[in-house]
Amino acid sequence: MKRPGRHAITSVDVARLAQVSQAAVSRTFTPGASVSDAMRTRVLDAAHRLGYRPNAHARSLITKRSRIIGVVVAHLRNLFYPAVLERLATRLQADGHHVLLFVNDTPDADSLVEQLMHYHVDGIVLAAATLSSGLAQQCALADIPVVLFNRIPASGSGPGTGSVRSDNEGGGRAVAEYLARAGHRRIAYLAGSEESSTNLERERGFRDGLAVAGLRIWARAVGDYDADAARAATRALFARPDDRPDAVFVASDHMAFAAIDTLRYELGLSVPRDVSVVGFDDVPQAAWDSYRLTTVEQPVDAMVEATVTLLRSQLADPRLAAAAHIVVPCRLVVRGSTRQHFDNDPPGGDA
Amino acid sequence: MKRPGRHAITSVDVARLAQVSQAAVSRTFTPGASVSDAMRTRVLDAAHRLGYRPNAHARSLITKRSRIIGVVVAHLRNLFYPAVLERLATRLQADGHHVLLFVNDTPDADSLVEQLMHYHVDGIVLAAATLSSGLAQQCALADIPVVLFNRIPASGSGPGTGSVRSDNEGGGRAVAEYLARAGHRRIAYLAGSEESSTNLERERGFRDGLAVAGLRIWARAVGDYDADAARAATRALFARPDDRPDAVFVASDHMAFAAIDTLRYELGLSVPRDVSVVGFDDVPQAAWDSYRLTTVEQPVDAMVEATVTLLRSQLADPRLAAAAHIVVPCRLVVRGSTRQHFDNDPPGGDA
Repeated sequence: MKRPGRHAITSVDVARLAQVSQAAVSRTFTPGASVSDAMRTRVLDAAHRLGYRPNAHARSLITKRSRIIGVVVAHLRNLFYPAVLERLATRLQADGHHVLLFVNDTPDADSLVEQLMHYHVDGIVLAAATLSSGLAQQCALADIPVVLFNRIPASGSGPGTGSVRSDNEGGGRAVAEYLARAGHRRIAYLAGSEESSTNLERERGFRDGLAVAGLRIWARAVGDYDADAARAATRALFARPDDRPDAVFVASDHMAFAAIDTLRYELGLSVPRDVSVVGFDDVPQAAWDSYRLTTVEQPVDAMVEATVTLLRSQLADPRLAAAAHIVVPCRLVVRGSTRQHFDNDPPGGDA
Repeated sequence: MKRPGRHAITSVDVARLAQVSQAAVSRTFTPGASVSDAMRTRVLDAAHRLGYRPNAHARSLITKRSRIIGVVVAHLRNLFYPAVLERLATRLQADGHHVLLFVNDTPDADSLVEQLMHYHVDGIVLAAATLSSGLAQQCALADIPVVLFNRIPASGSGPGTGSVRSDNEGGGRAVAEYLARAGHRRIAYLAGSEESSTNLERERGFRDGLAVAGLRIWARAVGDYDADAARAATRALFARPDDRPDAVFVASDHMAFAAIDTLRYELGLSVPRDVSVVGFDDVPQAAWDSYRLTTVEQPVDAMVEATVTLLRSQLADPRLAAAAHIVVPCRLVVRGSTRQHFDNDPPGGDA
C-alpha cells in the first residue's frame, strides 16, 4: 500500500537521472527483455540512488505476467499438504514466482474462481484431493493454466488442465503384494474419500495386487481422509474380537496414525503383533518412533518439480502442455508397523 | 496471464452496455465505494453478460490497495505453523484479502524484502519465530505495515511494526507451578532457539514460577525448535541413569514429541511414570493417544483474529496502531504425559 505523502519515484525519474529512454528502464526491469550490460548498469545505478522500485502490478499489465501462482488447498490438517506447500513455495520462489494461497474450506468454489481471476494469476495449482472438478473446468475456460496436484482431472475438464500425481495404483499394488507375502490373509482396507481419484486408484491397485495372490479385501470401512472418521472406521473393522483383520491398509498416513492409536489405546491390540498397519504418503511423522509406519512414499520433491515444469511449459505454450498428466513413481517404505514373519503364529487362512 | 487473441473486455465496454459512466463501473468494483443499488445491479448485469472481470492489479494502482497480505514463514515443519497459516488464510479471505506466501528458508532476507515490495502488498505478517528483526525494520522503513506473529520486535524496529503473541511468560509460569505442585523436584528445561523471543519468555516465566516454589531449573539442554536437536538434547539430559530429571518442560510440542519418543523407545523410560513431559503450543497431535501431551495452548483463533484486527487498523492509520503489541492469554491443558500423584514413589528432594 502506498502511503499518502510518500514520494513516488517513477521510471521517468530513473530515465532522467540515468540519461536513458524510459523504454530502456522498462526493459531493464522486465525479466527476459534485451538490454546491454552498460545500459543495465546505468539504469540500476540510478534506480538504486533514487530508491526506485518497479511496480510488479503495473508491470504485470504490460508483460501480461503477474508472476503469481494461485495454490488452492482444502486445508492443512492432512500432514501431507504442509510439506507440499513448503516445497512448492520454495521452488516457485527460486523461479521468481510466488504463491497466492487459497484455502477452500467451503463448497462455494465459484467465488474462489472469481477471486483467482481478479488477481490475474499466471497459473493455478490445485493441491487438494477433494476439490470439485468444476473449479478446474472454470479455470480452463478462463485460459488460466491449471495443474491438478495429487489428483487426476475429471473427463471434459478442458485443454488447460494438466496433472501431477504419484503412482497411486502401483503403490496400492505394492502394499497388497507385501502384505500377502508376509503371510497376512484377513487384509482390510480403510478407504479415503470414496469419490477422490487418490482413493479410487489406491484401492484399485490394492485389489489387483491381492487378486494376484488369490486374496480379496477381507473387510472395508471408510475414513474420508479424516482422523476422527478413521477412528470410527477402525472400531467398525475390529468390532468382533474373534473375527478381526490381521492387517489394514490405510489410504493415508494421517488416517493411519489415528487407526494405530485406536488399535493400541482403545482396543488394546498390539501393532504389529496383533495387526499390521500400512499407510500412504510417508509424511515426516511416519518415521517417528511411536508409529514407525510402513507406508508408500509419495515423492514430494519429484512431484513439485514436475508441477513447476508443467506450469512453465503451459505458460510458454498452453496448447503444447495441455493434456500432460505426469505420474511419479512411488515406493514402499517398510518400518515397524508391519510384521514380516509368522513363525509362531500362523494366520487364519479364511480369505 | 492473458492469452493472445483473447478478447479483452474493459470497463468502457461495461459502461456502454449498462449505459452508465465509466466511473460508476469503477465504483461498483471498488470495495467500500458508494454506489446505488439500482446502479450496482445495472453494472453487474452488464459485466456478467460481457464476461467482464475487473483487473485487481490495475485496480490496486488506482486504489493503492492490492488486497494482498504477504505472509512469511520460516518453514512448515513445526506443526504449529500449518494451523496458523490455514486459519490466517481463511480469515483474510473472508475479509477480501489473500495471502502471498513466502517461505524464508535462507539467510538472504534482503532479497525477500525486495520481492515483497515489488508486489506492493498491503501488509506483512511475519509468522516465523526465528526471522531476523532486520527484515522487520526494512519493511517498516518502506512504510509497509508489519505484524510480527508469535514474537516481539527487537528494539528500534520502527513505527510500522506491531506484534501478536500469546502470554509465553504466563504459560511458562503455569507449567512451573503445575510441576512443582505435582511433587516434581528435578525439573529440566529443553529450550528452543536461544535467541528467540518465544524461548526467552517461556524460560523466564518458567524460572520465575519455579523460584516461587523454591526450585530452580535442575538441568537444561537446547533443542533449537528442531526434532533431531531435541532428540540429542533429551539424550544429554538423561545421560546418567541414576541422576536424571523427573520432569521436563519442552519449549514446543514439536520437540516434545521427539523427546517422548526418545525417552520411551531409545532410553526405555516410561512417560509419565518415570518422567513427566510438558510441551508448548497444543498442536492437534498433542491430543493423539500416543502422546496425550500436557501442554500450554496457544490460542490460534484468538491470535489470528488479533493479527487481522491489527493489520486493519494499521492500514486505516499507520500512526495509530504503530506500537500495538497484543498478548493473548494461554492456558495449561493437562493430559496423560504428566503424573500428578506421588503416593507410592516420593521424588528425590535434591533440588
